[in-house]
Amino acid sequence: MNVGGQHFRTIWLNAADERVVQLIDQRWLPHRFVVEEVRTTEEMATAIRDMHVRGAGLIGAAAGYGMYLAALEAAAAPACDEYIAAAARRLKMTRPTAVNLAWAIDRQLARIAEAQTPEEKVAVALATAEAIAAEDAEHCRSIGRHGLNLIRDIARRKGGKPVNVLTHCNAGWLAFVDHGSATAPIYAAHDSGLPVHVWVDETRPRSQGSKLTAWELNEHGVPHTVIADNTGGHLMQRGDVDLVIVGTDRTTYTGDVANKIGTYLKALAAKDNNVPFYVALPSSSFDWKMRDGLAEIPIEERGSDEVSHADGWADGRQVEVRVTPAGSPAANYGFDVTPRRLVTGLITERGICEANEQSILGMFPEQAP
Amino acid sequence: MNVGGQHFRTIWLNAADERVVQLIDQRWLPHRFVVEEVRTTEEMATAIRDMHVRGAGLIGAAAGYGMYLAALEAAAAPACDEYIAAAARRLKMTRPTAVNLAWAIDRQLARIAEAQTPEEKVAVALATAEAIAAEDAEHCRSIGRHGLNLIRDIARRKGGKPVNVLTHCNAGWLAFVDHGSATAPIYAAHDSGLPVHVWVDETRPRSQGSKLTAWELNEHGVPHTVIADNTGGHLMQRGDVDLVIVGTDRTTYTGDVANKIGTYLKALAAKDNNVPFYVALPSSSFDWKMRDGLAEIPIEERGSDEVSHADGWADGRQVEVRVTPAGSPAANYGFDVTPRRLVTGLITERGICEANEQSILGMFPEQAP
Repeated sequence: MNVGGQHFRTIWLNAADERVVQLIDQRWLPHRFVVEEVRTTEEMATAIRDMHVRGAGLIGAAAGYGMYLAALEAAAAPACDEYIAAAARRLKMTRPTAVNLAWAIDRQLARIAEAQTPEEKVAVALATAEAIAAEDAEHCRSIGRHGLNLIRDIARRKGGKPVNVLTHCNAGWLAFVDHGSATAPIYAAHDSGLPVHVWVDETRPRSQGSKLTAWELNEHGVPHTVIADNTGGHLMQRGDVDLVIVGTDRTTYTGDVANKIGTYLKALAAKDNNVPFYVALPSSSFDWKMRDGLAEIPIEERGSDEVSHADGWADGRQVEVRVTPAGSPAANYGFDVTPRRLVTGLITERGICEANEQSILGMFPEQAP
Repeated sequence: MNVGGQHFRTIWLNAADERVVQLIDQRWLPHRFVVEEVRTTEEMATAIRDMHVRGAGLIGAAAGYGMYLAALEAAAAPACDEYIAAAARRLKMTRPTAVNLAWAIDRQLARIAEAQTPEEKVAVALATAEAIAAEDAEHCRSIGRHGLNLIRDIARRKGGKPVNVLTHCNAGWLAFVDHGSATAPIYAAHDSGLPVHVWVDETRPRSQGSKLTAWELNEHGVPHTVIADNTGGHLMQRGDVDLVIVGTDRTTYTGDVANKIGTYLKALAAKDNNVPFYVALPSSSFDWKMRDGLAEIPIEERGSDEVSHADGWADGRQVEVRVTPAGSPAANYGFDVTPRRLVTGLITERGICEANEQSILGMFPEQAP
């Protein structure tokens, strides 16, 4: 989508040097727009683990490019196959909850294994990395096309008044290669002239909503308002939310949704106020093996300093401030699971289905056991 | 309660000069412990409006002392009664949602009106201010005694494992004159040797949880962990919350609870996970006229800079950082209303009752119409 009027993706191959991957280093947003050059598997592992890049689709694309860099390195290593296998294990450990990570790495491993020479492996890995990124962007564009219908229906009912969409965290184009998942219908609506306004949950502790979602909506010109994470329930009680759309890090084939911590609370409020609650996801975010999200999805615990501190911009520089007393411990769970009973529907690249096994497998019959 | 081993209240009369009110200026917590001297009605109005003092009971006590300062000023003014009436109007405008504010001011106006001379009015206003503060502390102590039974029952069931209590915002002793409402049962349990651990919601945008509740629990030695506001639902799903206790800014006589924004979301999660959800309040926080909390309780909107910014401590000083993009608007609703159907019970100074008209008026029959 647009940044300062110019189209960007979140990750791309350097046009002048194919051995260099470029990505938007999102740690500096919304205050500085920084492009990072990544040249090694290790640098890509750091970029994923330390969240220079984050978000389901982008983690997958970054892992795809990371495996391409691994193939480049492996071509110069004494034991090519072992090097690639070790790099895959290394990359898989960086973010345990993100299903796209393992998905992209396994896809690369399967394709690379078909190639014979180190040079062929490099070529295959590059083509696969580019395909993963292109498919991600295309799937998001399709999600936008399907989700647009939901917004158009509400807009028609509201007779020209803005459609208020609430979203949590960043499932925007910054979380994918382009378009985003939760934001794709919003961008599609906005670009087609429908009046749409977005309530942006701040999303503590890392504040991806106020930092990333607000930034990308602002750069693309979509009307929006940032709110504290505590606010959504009250807005729904007042009738000020027409639709909730969130993303997901992993959704079971039975419809349970793991997403940024706090999503479950918004789903409860949506249910309590008869507000439709949709989850937008490319099919790569489905876990086709897991039946019970609450029991089975591993929830990442992160460092407590993200809760005890907040960072932002002051006096022209990025500053981290301590918000808790020095003696107080803090806990930081990254995700929660929203049970399928609270989910109105799933917006996928193939269309909208219900959050249950029958409807999901009906849309993706090739995944049926 | 204790600060560095010494007992404090949140507001008190200067022992050496009765014309000076002292209070803890809570804007600097948890990083600095600052005591402010307040000498005029105008200074007290500022202290209330700009939240040097905040919280249901403390706002009432501060308004009581504010009216005493008004009586002192009125004694030197040409039109004593008019001066007092104007001061009352001025003070009432400072925080529209807090029912204790109007309650304390009206109580002062009624008592002051009974006195004849300006000097008598000063004496009556002083006695009334001191009585309001003393009653507030005593009511909170009683809330602690009643709530202790809930914690003791859970502790018995858990066989010595810590009882996990989740609380939102600060309904601690810093929000009252002493003990607090939601924290009173916690302090009573801790002081009587029961193992208790508190999940402290950060409570954006003003972060009263991470700044105030964490600080006072830490100073008193109560085990606790600060969490992002998004986290409570996940903890309840995991069975890591035994009990929720929150305070209230205003509760209708039918049991609808206005409290810090986000309370409603935690109440929904408690209901969904069969976790008891209690509201602790002195009877001064009841609104005896309002029947429908959702329809009738006015919700204060505050400045958007509290959402677009966060403040904390860095390099030995208090720093405010911007967390949103410069072009992004923000909205800041101070409170929400939790409907009675989500409230397990109310812990008052007279005992525990259900959140409905019959049970509440059964405990406070003198308020029946």
